Amino acid sequence: MAHSAPPAGPAADEARTAPDIDHEFDRDTALAPRGNGEFDAVISGGWSILGAVNGGYLKAILGRALALTLPHPHPFTATAHYLSTPAPGPAVLRTTLLRAGRTLSTGTASLLQTDEHGAEVERVRMTATYGDLDALSQHVATTATAPHVAPYEQCVAMDAAGGPGALGDIPIVERLASRLDPDSTGWALGRPSGRGRMAGWFAFADGREHDALSLLLVGDAMPPAAFDLGTIGWTPTVELTTHVRARPEPGPLRVLVATRNPAGGFLEEDAEVWDSADRLVAQSRQLARMPRPAAG
Amino acid sequence: MAHSAPPAGPAADEARTAPDIDHEFDRDTALAPRGNGEFDAVISGGWSILGAVNGGYLKAILGRALALTLPHPHPFTATAHYLSTPAPGPAVLRTTLLRAGRTLSTGTASLLQTDEHGAEVERVRMTATYGDLDALSQHVATTATAPHVAPYEQCVAMDAAGGPGALGDIPIVERLASRLDPDSTGWALGRPSGRGRMAGWFAFADGREHDALSLLLVGDAMPPAAFDLGTIGWTPTVELTTHVRARPEPGPLRVLVATRNPAGGFLEEDAEVWDSADRLVAQSRQLARMPRPAAG
Repeated sequence: MAHSAPPAGPAADEARTAPDIDHEFDRDTALAPRGNGEFDAVISGGWSILGAVNGGYLKAILGRALALTLPHPHPFTATAHYLSTPAPGPAVLRTTLLRAGRTLSTGTASLLQTDEHGAEVERVRMTATYGDLDALSQHVATTATAPHVAPYEQCVAMDAAGGPGALGDIPIVERLASRLDPDSTGWALGRPSGRGRMAGWFAFADGREHDALSLLLVGDAMPPAAFDLGTIGWTPTVELTTHVRARPEPGPLRVLVATRNPAGGFLEEDAEVWDSADRLVAQSRQLARMPRPAAG
Repeated sequence: MAHSAPPAGPAADEARTAPDIDHEFDRDTALAPRGNGEFDAVISGGWSILGAVNGGYLKAILGRALALTLPHPHPFTATAHYLSTPAPGPAVLRTTLLRAGRTLSTGTASLLQTDEHGAEVERVRMTATYGDLDALSQHVATTATAPHVAPYEQCVAMDAAGGPGALGDIPIVERLASRLDPDSTGWALGRPSGRGRMAGWFAFADGREHDALSLLLVGDAMPPAAFDLGTIGWTPTVELTTHVRARPEPGPLRVLVATRNPAGGFLEEDAEVWDSADRLVAQSRQLARMPRPAAG
Protein backbone atom coordinates (compact mmCIF):
# COMPACT_ATOMS: atom_id res chain seq x y z
CA MET A 1 0.00 0.00 0.00
CA ALA A 2 1.42 3.39 -0.95
CA HIS A 3 1.18 6.04 1.72
CA SER A 4 0.21 9.53 0.64
CA ALA A 5 1.49 12.58 2.44
CA PRO A 6 -0.46 13.45 5.57
CA PRO A 7 -3.55 15.48 4.74
CA ALA A 8 -3.45 19.22 5.25
CA GLY A 9 -5.58 19.90 8.27
CA PRO A 10 -5.92 21.81 11.53
CA ALA A 11 -3.39 21.79 14.38
CA ALA A 12 -0.46 19.43 13.94
CA ASP A 13 -0.50 16.42 16.22
CA GLU A 14 1.12 13.01 16.49
CA ALA A 15 -1.94 11.26 15.07
CA ARG A 16 -2.02 13.64 12.09
CA THR A 17 1.52 13.30 10.88
CA ALA A 18 2.93 10.53 8.74
CA PRO A 19 2.88 7.17 10.53
CA ASP A 20 5.96 6.49 12.64
CA ILE A 21 7.24 3.60 10.57
CA ASP A 22 9.77 2.71 13.27
CA HIS A 23 7.08 1.05 15.36
CA GLU A 24 4.83 -1.91 14.62
CA PHE A 25 1.72 -0.31 16.11
CA ASP A 26 2.01 2.70 13.81
CA ARG A 27 2.89 0.68 10.72
CA ASP A 28 -0.03 -1.66 11.34
CA THR A 29 -2.55 1.16 11.88
CA ALA A 30 -1.28 3.29 8.97
CA LEU A 31 -3.86 4.78 6.61
CA ALA A 32 -3.71 5.97 3.02
CA PRO A 33 -6.23 8.81 2.50
CA ARG A 34 -8.55 8.49 -0.51
CA GLY A 35 -10.19 11.86 0.14
CA ASN A 36 -13.75 12.53 1.27
CA GLY A 37 -13.03 11.00 4.66
CA GLU A 38 -12.13 7.61 3.19
CA PHE A 39 -8.95 5.68 3.85
CA ASP A 40 -7.28 2.45 2.80
CA ALA A 41 -5.78 0.23 5.48
CA VAL A 42 -4.28 -3.21 5.74
CA ILE A 43 -5.29 -5.28 8.75
CA SER A 44 -2.20 -7.04 10.03
CA GLY A 45 -2.32 -10.65 11.17
CA GLY A 46 0.16 -9.75 13.87
CA TRP A 47 -2.40 -8.59 16.47
CA SER A 48 -4.51 -11.73 16.61
CA ILE A 49 -5.53 -14.04 19.43
CA LEU A 50 -6.70 -17.59 18.69
CA GLY A 51 -7.19 -16.61 15.04
CA ALA A 52 -9.29 -13.53 15.83
CA VAL A 53 -8.03 -10.01 15.11
CA ASN A 54 -7.86 -8.13 18.43
CA GLY A 55 -10.74 -5.68 18.88
CA GLY A 56 -8.55 -3.03 20.50
CA TYR A 57 -6.19 -3.08 17.52
CA LEU A 58 -9.12 -2.59 15.10
CA LYS A 59 -10.36 0.24 17.30
CA ALA A 60 -6.99 1.98 17.02
CA ILE A 61 -7.22 1.88 13.20
CA LEU A 62 -10.68 3.50 13.37
CA GLY A 63 -9.34 5.96 15.94
CA ARG A 64 -6.58 7.04 13.60
CA ALA A 65 -9.09 7.61 10.80
CA LEU A 66 -11.18 9.87 13.04
CA ALA A 67 -8.09 11.75 14.25
CA LEU A 68 -7.42 12.53 10.57
CA THR A 69 -11.02 13.61 9.98
CA LEU A 70 -12.25 15.49 13.05
CA PRO A 71 -11.05 18.96 14.05
CA HIS A 72 -9.80 17.68 17.43
CA PRO A 73 -6.87 15.30 17.85
CA HIS A 74 -7.62 12.92 20.75
CA PRO A 75 -10.40 10.39 21.43
CA PHE A 76 -12.12 11.39 24.69
CA THR A 77 -14.74 8.65 24.43
CA ALA A 78 -14.92 6.03 21.68
CA THR A 79 -17.39 3.17 21.31
CA ALA A 80 -16.88 0.32 18.84
CA HIS A 81 -19.51 -2.25 17.90
CA TYR A 82 -18.08 -5.41 16.35
CA LEU A 83 -20.38 -6.50 13.54
CA SER A 84 -18.64 -9.31 11.65
CA THR A 85 -15.35 -11.16 11.78
CA PRO A 86 -12.50 -9.36 10.01
CA ALA A 87 -9.64 -11.12 8.28
CA PRO A 88 -6.08 -9.86 7.92
CA GLY A 89 -5.78 -7.99 4.62
CA PRO A 90 -7.10 -4.88 2.90
CA ALA A 91 -9.85 -2.79 4.46
CA VAL A 92 -11.56 0.51 3.73
CA LEU A 93 -12.48 3.11 6.33
CA ARG A 94 -15.30 5.61 5.89
CA THR A 95 -15.69 8.49 8.32
CA THR A 96 -18.50 10.98 8.87
CA LEU A 97 -18.40 14.16 10.91
CA LEU A 98 -21.54 14.44 13.04
CA ARG A 99 -20.77 17.65 14.88
CA ALA A 100 -17.83 20.01 15.31
CA GLY A 101 -17.91 22.18 18.42
CA ARG A 102 -15.36 24.46 19.98
CA THR A 103 -13.97 21.97 22.50
CA LEU A 104 -15.40 18.65 21.30
CA SER A 105 -16.28 17.05 17.98
CA THR A 106 -18.08 13.79 17.20
CA GLY A 107 -17.88 11.45 14.26
CA THR A 108 -18.46 7.90 13.13
CA ALA A 109 -16.09 5.55 11.35
CA SER A 110 -16.81 2.25 9.60
CA LEU A 111 -14.27 -0.43 8.83
CA LEU A 112 -15.30 -2.49 5.79
CA GLN A 113 -13.89 -5.44 3.89
CA THR A 114 -14.91 -7.21 0.71
CA ASP A 115 -16.28 -10.72 1.09
CA GLU A 116 -15.69 -13.69 -1.22
CA HIS A 117 -18.59 -12.62 -3.45
CA GLY A 118 -17.14 -9.12 -3.88
CA ALA A 119 -19.71 -7.52 -1.58
CA GLU A 120 -18.70 -4.89 0.95
CA VAL A 121 -19.24 -6.01 4.55
CA GLU A 122 -19.02 -3.75 7.59
CA ARG A 123 -16.75 -5.19 10.28
CA VAL A 124 -16.71 -2.48 12.96
CA ARG A 125 -18.71 0.70 13.55
CA MET A 126 -17.23 3.28 15.88
CA THR A 127 -18.73 6.51 17.18
CA ALA A 128 -16.41 8.80 19.10
CA THR A 129 -16.13 12.26 20.57
CA TYR A 130 -12.72 13.87 20.21
CA GLY A 131 -11.12 16.78 22.07
CA ASP A 132 -7.69 18.11 22.89
CA LEU A 133 -6.14 16.54 25.99
CA ASP A 134 -3.53 19.31 26.11
CA ALA A 135 -6.24 21.95 26.44
CA LEU A 136 -7.77 20.46 29.61
CA SER A 137 -7.44 21.99 33.04
CA GLN A 138 -4.76 20.54 35.29
CA HIS A 139 -7.27 19.93 38.08
CA VAL A 140 -7.22 16.27 39.15
CA ALA A 141 -9.59 15.09 41.90
CA THR A 142 -9.39 11.35 41.19
CA THR A 143 -10.46 9.26 44.20
CA ALA A 144 -9.62 5.90 42.62
CA THR A 145 -6.30 4.47 43.73
CA ALA A 146 -3.91 2.57 41.49
CA PRO A 147 -4.20 -1.21 41.67
CA HIS A 148 -1.46 -3.19 43.35
CA VAL A 149 0.82 -4.54 40.63
CA ALA A 150 4.19 -6.09 41.50
CA PRO A 151 7.27 -4.34 40.01
CA TYR A 152 7.69 -5.02 36.29
CA GLU A 153 10.75 -7.26 36.82
CA GLN A 154 8.78 -9.48 39.22
CA CYS A 155 5.83 -9.88 36.84
CA VAL A 156 5.39 -12.74 34.37
CA ALA A 157 5.78 -12.37 30.61
CA MET A 158 2.60 -13.28 28.68
CA ASP A 159 4.21 -16.09 26.72
CA ALA A 160 5.44 -17.60 29.99
CA ALA A 161 2.04 -17.19 31.68
CA GLY A 162 -0.12 -18.67 28.98
CA GLY A 163 1.64 -18.91 25.67
CA PRO A 164 0.95 -21.05 22.65
CA GLY A 165 0.93 -24.20 24.74
CA ALA A 166 -1.95 -22.98 26.86
CA LEU A 167 -4.03 -21.01 24.39
CA GLY A 168 -2.99 -21.71 20.83
CA ASP A 169 -1.65 -19.18 18.36
CA ILE A 170 -1.29 -15.67 19.86
CA PRO A 171 0.85 -13.46 17.59
CA ILE A 172 -0.18 -10.34 19.57
CA VAL A 173 2.03 -11.57 22.42
CA GLU A 174 5.09 -10.99 20.22
CA ARG A 175 4.16 -7.31 19.71
CA LEU A 176 3.84 -6.66 23.43
CA ALA A 177 6.19 -6.58 26.40
CA SER A 178 3.22 -6.84 28.74
CA ARG A 179 3.53 -8.73 32.00
CA LEU A 180 1.03 -10.21 34.44
CA ASP A 181 1.13 -9.77 38.19
CA PRO A 182 2.04 -13.19 39.66
CA ASP A 183 -1.30 -13.04 41.49
CA SER A 184 -3.10 -12.99 38.08
CA THR A 185 -1.44 -16.05 36.52
CA GLY A 186 -3.19 -18.89 38.36
CA TRP A 187 -5.54 -19.50 35.41
CA ALA A 188 -2.57 -20.48 33.20
CA LEU A 189 -1.66 -23.17 35.75
CA GLY A 190 -5.21 -24.47 36.07
CA ARG A 191 -5.76 -22.57 39.32
CA PRO A 192 -7.86 -19.45 38.51
CA SER A 193 -8.49 -17.29 41.56
CA GLY A 194 -12.22 -17.02 40.82
CA ARG A 195 -12.13 -13.25 41.46
CA GLY A 196 -12.38 -12.30 37.76
CA ARG A 197 -9.38 -9.99 37.98
CA MET A 198 -6.30 -9.53 35.79
CA ALA A 199 -3.57 -7.06 36.73
CA GLY A 200 -0.30 -6.32 35.03
CA TRP A 201 1.90 -4.06 32.95
CA PHE A 202 1.22 -3.06 29.35
CA ALA A 203 4.02 -2.05 26.98
CA PHE A 204 4.97 -2.42 23.33
CA ALA A 205 7.76 -4.91 22.58
CA ASP A 206 9.54 -2.42 20.31
CA GLY A 207 9.62 0.31 22.94
CA ARG A 208 6.97 2.59 21.41
CA GLU A 209 5.62 4.90 24.11
CA HIS A 210 1.88 5.17 24.66
CA ASP A 211 -0.32 8.03 23.49
CA ALA A 212 -4.05 8.70 23.27
CA LEU A 213 -4.37 6.43 20.23
CA SER A 214 -2.64 3.40 21.72
CA LEU A 215 -4.84 3.66 24.83
CA LEU A 216 -7.68 2.45 22.57
CA LEU A 217 -5.76 -0.83 22.27
CA VAL A 218 -4.89 -1.21 25.95
CA GLY A 219 -8.45 -1.77 27.14
CA ASP A 220 -8.72 -4.97 25.10
CA ALA A 221 -5.19 -6.35 25.10
CA MET A 222 -4.83 -8.11 28.46
CA PRO A 223 -6.02 -11.69 28.94
CA PRO A 224 -9.78 -11.54 29.59
CA ALA A 225 -10.86 -11.36 33.23
CA ALA A 226 -13.03 -14.40 32.49
CA PHE A 227 -9.85 -16.53 32.37
CA ASP A 228 -9.47 -15.82 36.10
CA LEU A 229 -12.94 -17.35 36.54
CA GLY A 230 -11.72 -20.55 34.90
CA THR A 231 -13.49 -20.04 31.56
CA ILE A 232 -10.65 -19.91 29.04
CA GLY A 233 -11.12 -19.30 25.33
CA TRP A 234 -11.99 -16.64 22.80
CA THR A 235 -14.13 -13.92 24.43
CA PRO A 236 -15.83 -12.13 21.50
CA THR A 237 -16.34 -8.44 22.20
CA VAL A 238 -19.80 -7.12 21.35
CA GLU A 239 -19.06 -3.48 22.20
CA LEU A 240 -16.05 -1.68 23.67
CA THR A 241 -16.11 1.87 25.03
CA THR A 242 -12.90 3.67 26.02
CA HIS A 243 -12.57 6.98 27.85
CA VAL A 244 -9.15 8.57 27.36
CA ARG A 245 -8.65 11.08 30.16
CA ALA A 246 -5.02 12.19 29.95
CA ARG A 247 -1.94 11.85 27.79
CA PRO A 248 0.10 9.08 29.42
CA GLU A 249 3.58 9.79 30.77
CA PRO A 250 6.37 7.60 29.35
CA GLY A 251 6.87 4.07 30.65
CA PRO A 252 4.84 0.87 30.92
CA LEU A 253 1.21 1.27 31.98
CA ARG A 254 -0.45 -0.56 34.84
CA VAL A 255 -3.74 -2.15 33.79
CA LEU A 256 -6.43 -3.76 35.92
CA VAL A 257 -9.13 -5.72 34.12
CA ALA A 258 -12.08 -6.98 36.14
CA THR A 259 -15.54 -8.41 35.69
CA ARG A 260 -18.27 -8.32 38.32
CA ASN A 261 -21.31 -9.44 36.35
CA PRO A 262 -20.86 -12.65 34.33
CA ALA A 263 -24.44 -13.80 33.73
CA GLY A 264 -26.68 -15.14 31.00
CA GLY A 265 -23.76 -15.98 28.73
CA PHE A 266 -22.36 -12.43 28.68
CA LEU A 267 -20.01 -10.43 30.87
CA GLU A 268 -18.84 -6.88 31.27
CA GLU A 269 -15.11 -6.20 31.48
CA ASP A 270 -13.84 -2.98 33.02
CA ALA A 271 -10.25 -1.91 32.48
CA GLU A 272 -8.46 0.93 34.20
CA VAL A 273 -5.12 2.15 32.91
CA TRP A 274 -2.61 4.00 35.08
CA ASP A 275 0.53 5.75 33.88
CA SER A 276 3.95 6.15 35.51
CA ALA A 277 2.82 9.44 37.11
CA ASP A 278 0.00 7.59 38.94
CA ARG A 279 -2.68 9.15 36.79
CA LEU A 280 -5.80 7.19 35.78
CA VAL A 281 -5.34 7.90 32.06
CA ALA A 282 -8.04 5.64 30.59
CA GLN A 283 -11.08 3.62 31.59
CA SER A 284 -12.76 1.11 29.34
CA ARG A 285 -15.75 -1.18 29.56
CA GLN A 286 -16.82 -3.86 27.15
CA LEU A 287 -19.74 -6.22 26.80
CA ALA A 288 -18.50 -9.62 25.67
CA ARG A 289 -19.80 -13.12 25.24
CA MET A 290 -18.53 -15.65 27.75
CA PRO A 291 -15.57 -17.52 26.30
CA ARG A 292 -16.09 -20.37 23.93
CA PRO A 293 -13.57 -23.16 24.42
CA ALA A 294 -10.46 -22.74 22.26
CA ALA A 295 -10.49 -24.99 19.21
CA GLY A 296 -8.21 -27.98 19.79
CA MET B 1 -49.62 13.52 17.25
CA ALA B 2 -51.64 10.65 15.80
CA HIS B 3 -50.37 7.20 16.63
CA SER B 4 -50.45 4.59 13.90
CA ALA B 5 -51.02 0.94 14.64
CA PRO B 6 -47.86 -0.92 15.66
CA PRO B 7 -45.87 -1.96 12.59
CA ALA B 8 -46.11 -5.55 11.45
CA GLY B 9 -42.82 -7.15 12.38
CA PRO B 10 -41.08 -10.08 13.99
CA ALA B 11 -41.84 -11.53 17.43
CA ALA B 12 -44.32 -9.57 19.52
CA ASP B 13 -42.84 -7.76 22.50
CA GLU B 14 -43.76 -5.00 24.90
CA ALA B 15 -41.66 -2.45 23.04
CA ARG B 16 -43.28 -3.39 19.74
CA THR B 17 -46.89 -3.01 20.71
CA ALA B 18 -48.87 0.18 20.91
CA PRO B 19 -47.53 2.54 23.58
CA ASP B 20 -49.04 1.97 27.01
CA ILE B 21 -50.86 5.26 27.20
CA ASP B 22 -51.62 4.71 30.87
CA HIS B 23 -48.08 5.71 31.83
CA GLU B 24 -46.18 8.95 31.34
CA PHE B 25 -42.94 7.26 30.32
CA ASP B 26 -44.67 5.41 27.47
CA ARG B 27 -46.73 8.40 26.35
CA ASP B 28 -43.63 10.60 26.32
CA THR B 29 -41.53 8.11 24.35
CA ALA B 30 -44.29 7.20 21.89
CA LEU B 31 -43.41 7.09 18.19
CA ALA B 32 -45.46 7.45 15.03
CA PRO B 33 -43.87 5.37 12.24
CA ARG B 34 -43.31 7.13 8.90
CA GLY B 35 -41.96 3.98 7.23
CA ASN B 36 -38.40 3.32 6.07
CA GLY B 37 -37.16 3.26 9.65
CA GLU B 38 -38.27 6.85 10.32
CA PHE B 39 -40.49 7.97 13.18
CA ASP B 40 -42.07 11.14 14.50
CA ALA B 41 -41.79 11.90 18.20
CA VAL B 42 -42.59 14.77 20.53
CA ILE B 43 -39.98 15.53 23.17
CA SER B 44 -41.80 16.27 26.40
CA GLY B 45 -40.73 19.11 28.67
CA GLY B 46 -41.62 16.91 31.62
CA TRP B 47 -38.27 15.11 31.88
CA SER B 48 -36.02 18.15 32.22
CA ILE B 49 -33.50 19.23 34.82
CA LEU B 50 -32.45 22.87 35.10
CA GLY B 51 -33.93 23.52 31.66
CA ALA B 52 -32.08 20.63 29.98
CA VAL B 53 -33.93 17.60 28.63
CA ASN B 54 -32.65 14.52 30.51
CA GLY B 55 -30.23 12.44 28.46
CA GLY B 56 -31.61 9.13 29.72
CA TYR B 57 -35.11 10.11 28.60
CA LEU B 58 -33.83 10.96 25.10
CA LYS B 59 -32.00 7.66 25.04
CA ALA B 60 -35.24 5.81 25.79
CA ILE B 61 -36.91 7.47 22.77
CA LEU B 62 -34.04 6.32 20.54
CA GLY B 63 -34.20 2.89 22.19
CA ARG B 64 -37.86 2.54 21.32
CA ALA B 65 -37.14 3.44 17.69
CA LEU B 66 -34.49 0.71 17.46
CA ALA B 67 -36.77 -1.83 19.17
CA LEU B 68 -39.25 -1.13 16.36
CA THR B 69 -36.56 -1.47 13.68
CA LEU B 70 -34.20 -4.26 14.68
CA PRO B 71 -35.13 -7.96 14.64
CA HIS B 72 -34.38 -8.30 18.39
CA PRO B 73 -36.45 -6.63 21.11
CA HIS B 74 -34.09 -5.56 23.94
CA PRO B 75 -31.08 -3.22 24.11
CA PHE B 76 -28.09 -5.24 25.36
CA THR B 77 -25.65 -2.35 24.97
CA ALA B 78 -26.56 1.14 23.82
CA THR B 79 -24.30 4.18 23.46
CA ALA B 80 -25.63 7.70 22.97
CA HIS B 81 -23.53 10.71 21.97
CA TYR B 82 -25.18 14.05 22.77
CA LEU B 83 -24.46 16.42 19.90
CA SER B 84 -26.57 19.54 20.44
CA THR B 85 -29.13 20.80 22.91
CA PRO B 86 -32.66 19.55 22.24
CA ALA B 87 -35.79 21.52 23.01
CA PRO B 88 -39.18 20.13 24.00
CA GLY B 89 -41.29 19.72 20.85
CA PRO B 90 -41.35 17.73 17.61
CA ALA B 91 -38.45 15.51 16.62
CA VAL B 92 -37.71 13.00 13.89
CA LEU B 93 -35.91 9.71 14.39
CA ARG B 94 -34.00 7.91 11.65
CA THR B 95 -32.78 4.38 12.17
CA THR B 96 -30.36 2.22 10.19
CA LEU B 97 -29.80 -1.51 10.53
CA LEU B 98 -26.07 -2.26 10.50
CA ARG B 99 -26.18 -6.01 11.01
CA ALA B 100 -28.76 -8.66 11.85
CA GLY B 101 -27.39 -11.87 13.32
CA ARG B 102 -29.09 -14.86 14.87
CA THR B 103 -28.78 -13.76 18.49
CA LEU B 104 -27.75 -10.09 18.20
CA SER B 105 -28.46 -7.21 15.85
CA THR B 106 -26.92 -3.75 15.69
CA GLY B 107 -28.28 -0.44 14.45
CA THR B 108 -27.95 3.29 14.73
CA ALA B 109 -30.60 5.88 15.47
CA SER B 110 -30.47 9.66 15.11
CA LEU B 111 -32.75 12.12 16.85
CA LEU B 112 -33.12 15.33 14.83
CA GLN B 113 -34.95 18.63 15.25
CA THR B 114 -35.43 21.62 13.01
CA ASP B 115 -33.64 24.80 14.04
CA GLU B 116 -34.97 28.37 13.77
CA HIS B 117 -33.69 28.62 10.18
CA GLY B 118 -35.55 25.46 9.14
CA ALA B 119 -32.39 23.36 9.01
CA GLU B 120 -32.30 19.83 10.38
CA VAL B 121 -29.93 19.47 13.35
CA GLU B 122 -28.88 16.17 14.87
CA ARG B 123 -29.34 16.13 18.66
CA VAL B 124 -28.37 12.59 19.65
CA ARG B 125 -26.72 9.69 17.83
CA MET B 126 -27.12 6.23 19.32
CA THR B 127 -25.55 2.95 18.27
CA ALA B 128 -26.86 -0.14 19.98
CA THR B 129 -26.78 -3.92 19.86
CA TYR B 130 -30.07 -5.64 20.61
CA GLY B 131 -30.85 -9.19 21.67
CA ASP B 132 -33.56 -11.13 23.46
CA LEU B 133 -33.20 -11.13 27.25
CA ASP B 134 -35.69 -13.98 27.52
CA ALA B 135 -33.48 -16.21 25.35
CA LEU B 136 -30.42 -15.95 27.63
CA SER B 137 -29.18 -18.77 29.82
CA GLN B 138 -30.23 -18.66 33.47
CA HIS B 139 -26.61 -18.95 34.62
CA VAL B 140 -25.72 -16.06 36.95
CA ALA B 141 -22.19 -15.82 38.37
CA THR B 142 -22.29 -12.16 39.44
CA THR B 143 -19.65 -11.36 42.07
CA ALA B 144 -20.78 -7.76 42.63
CA THR B 145 -22.93 -7.28 45.70
CA ALA B 146 -25.89 -4.93 45.91
CA PRO B 147 -25.12 -1.53 47.44
CA HIS B 148 -26.43 -0.72 50.87
CA VAL B 149 -29.58 1.34 50.47
CA ALA B 150 -31.89 2.02 53.41
CA PRO B 151 -35.47 0.69 53.10
CA TYR B 152 -37.61 2.75 50.71
CA GLU B 153 -39.72 4.24 53.54
CA GLN B 154 -36.59 5.50 55.29
CA CYS B 155 -35.19 7.17 52.16
CA VAL B 156 -35.70 10.80 51.20
CA ALA B 157 -37.93 11.94 48.35
CA MET B 158 -36.04 13.90 45.66
CA ASP B 159 -38.07 17.06 46.06
CA ALA B 160 -37.34 16.97 49.79
CA ALA B 161 -33.63 16.31 49.25
CA GLY B 162 -32.94 18.98 46.70
CA GLY B 163 -36.06 20.34 45.13
CA PRO B 164 -36.70 23.59 43.36
CA GLY B 165 -35.28 25.59 46.23
CA ALA B 166 -31.88 23.98 45.94
CA LEU B 167 -31.54 23.41 42.22
CA GLY B 168 -34.13 25.34 40.26
CA ASP B 169 -36.78 23.88 38.01
CA ILE B 170 -36.75 20.05 37.92
CA PRO B 171 -39.95 18.73 36.33
CA ILE B 172 -38.46 15.21 36.08
CA VAL B 173 -38.82 14.92 39.86
CA GLU B 174 -42.61 14.94 39.45
CA ARG B 175 -42.48 11.91 37.11
CA LEU B 176 -40.45 9.85 39.56
CA ALA B 177 -41.01 8.32 42.98
CA SER B 178 -37.27 7.94 43.42
CA ARG B 179 -35.71 8.32 46.85
CA LEU B 180 -32.19 8.96 48.09
CA ASP B 181 -30.47 7.05 50.85
CA PRO B 182 -30.13 9.45 53.81
CA ASP B 183 -26.38 8.95 53.49
CA SER B 184 -26.52 10.49 49.97
CA THR B 185 -28.37 13.70 50.82
CA GLY B 186 -25.62 15.74 52.52
CA TRP B 187 -24.99 17.74 49.31
CA ALA B 188 -28.53 19.19 49.48
CA LEU B 189 -27.74 20.51 52.99
CA GLY B 190 -24.37 21.94 52.00
CA ARG B 191 -22.50 18.97 53.47
CA PRO B 192 -21.46 16.71 50.56
CA SER B 193 -19.64 13.58 51.72
CA GLY B 194 -16.84 14.06 49.19
CA ARG B 195 -17.03 10.37 48.21
CA GLY B 196 -18.74 11.02 44.85
CA ARG B 197 -21.47 8.51 45.57
CA MET B 198 -25.27 8.62 45.23
CA ALA B 199 -27.44 5.68 46.31
CA GLY B 200 -31.19 5.34 46.30
CA TRP B 201 -34.36 3.88 44.89
CA PHE B 202 -35.67 4.49 41.39
CA ALA B 203 -39.36 4.21 40.53
CA PHE B 204 -41.94 5.92 38.34
CA ALA B 205 -44.44 8.15 40.14
CA ASP B 206 -47.38 6.61 38.26
CA GLY B 207 -46.44 3.05 39.23
CA ARG B 208 -45.17 1.89 35.82
CA GLU B 209 -42.94 -1.12 36.30
CA HIS B 210 -39.48 -1.17 34.77
CA ASP B 211 -38.48 -3.03 31.63
CA ALA B 212 -35.45 -3.13 29.35
CA LEU B 213 -36.41 0.19 27.77
CA SER B 214 -36.84 2.14 30.99
CA LEU B 215 -33.43 0.91 32.19
CA LEU B 216 -31.96 3.23 29.54
CA LEU B 217 -33.38 6.10 31.58
CA VAL B 218 -32.28 4.87 35.00
CA GLY B 219 -28.56 5.29 34.36
CA ASP B 220 -28.99 9.04 33.96
CA ALA B 221 -31.87 9.91 36.26
CA MET B 222 -30.32 10.11 39.74
CA PRO B 223 -28.65 13.32 40.96
CA PRO B 224 -25.11 13.34 39.53
CA ALA B 225 -22.40 11.82 41.73
CA ALA B 226 -20.55 15.14 41.33
CA PHE B 227 -23.11 16.75 43.66
CA ASP B 228 -21.67 14.57 46.43
CA LEU B 229 -18.29 16.17 45.67
CA GLY B 230 -19.79 19.60 46.31
CA THR B 231 -19.98 20.66 42.65
CA ILE B 232 -23.66 21.24 42.05
CA GLY B 233 -25.15 22.25 38.72
CA TRP B 234 -25.98 20.94 35.28
CA THR B 235 -23.63 18.07 34.37
CA PRO B 236 -23.82 17.82 30.56
CA THR B 237 -23.45 14.25 29.35
CA VAL B 238 -21.05 13.78 26.45
CA GLU B 239 -21.66 10.04 26.01
CA LEU B 240 -23.73 7.48 27.90
CA THR B 241 -23.42 3.71 27.50
CA THR B 242 -25.89 1.32 29.12
CA HIS B 243 -25.66 -2.46 29.35
CA VAL B 244 -29.02 -4.09 30.03
CA ARG B 245 -28.35 -7.55 31.41
CA ALA B 246 -31.69 -8.90 32.61
CA ARG B 247 -35.39 -8.07 32.60
CA PRO B 248 -36.03 -6.43 35.99
CA GLU B 249 -38.44 -8.01 38.45
CA PRO B 250 -41.30 -5.76 39.64
CA GLY B 251 -40.69 -3.14 42.30
CA PRO B 252 -38.46 -0.11 42.79
CA LEU B 253 -34.85 -0.50 41.66
CA ARG B 254 -31.80 0.21 43.77
CA VAL B 255 -29.31 2.44 41.98
CA LEU B 256 -25.76 3.35 42.94
CA VAL B 257 -24.10 6.15 40.99
CA ALA B 258 -20.41 6.81 41.61
CA THR B 259 -17.49 8.71 40.12
CA ARG B 260 -13.85 7.85 40.77
CA ASN B 261 -12.08 10.01 38.21
CA PRO B 262 -13.10 13.69 38.16
CA ALA B 263 -10.17 15.37 36.38
CA GLY B 264 -9.44 17.93 33.71
CA GLY B 265 -13.00 19.30 33.75
CA PHE B 266 -14.62 15.93 32.97
CA LEU B 267 -15.78 12.97 35.02
CA GLU B 268 -16.99 9.46 34.47
CA GLU B 269 -20.17 8.32 36.21
CA ASP B 270 -20.89 4.64 36.73
CA ALA B 271 -24.36 3.48 37.65
CA GLU B 272 -25.38 0.02 38.73
CA VAL B 273 -29.02 -0.95 38.88
CA TRP B 274 -30.33 -3.80 41.06
CA ASP B 275 -33.82 -5.26 40.98
CA SER B 276 -36.01 -6.66 43.76
CA ALA B 277 -34.62 -10.15 43.11
CA ASP B 278 -31.08 -8.89 43.87
CA ARG B 279 -30.00 -9.16 40.25
CA LEU B 280 -27.59 -6.61 38.72
CA VAL B 281 -29.91 -5.80 35.80
CA ALA B 282 -28.05 -2.85 34.25
CA GLN B 283 -24.70 -1.08 34.33
CA SER B 284 -24.09 2.28 32.77
CA ARG B 285 -21.15 4.61 32.39
CA GLN B 286 -21.11 8.14 31.08
CA LEU B 287 -18.50 10.76 30.32
CA ALA B 288 -19.74 14.16 31.43
CA ARG B 289 -18.45 17.67 31.87
CA MET B 290 -17.99 18.78 35.47
CA PRO B 291 -21.05 20.74 36.58
CA ARG B 292 -21.41 24.36 35.67
CA PRO B 293 -23.00 26.38 38.45
CA ALA B 294 -26.78 26.54 38.15
CA ALA B 295 -27.98 29.84 36.74
CA GLY B 296 -29.32 31.98 39.57
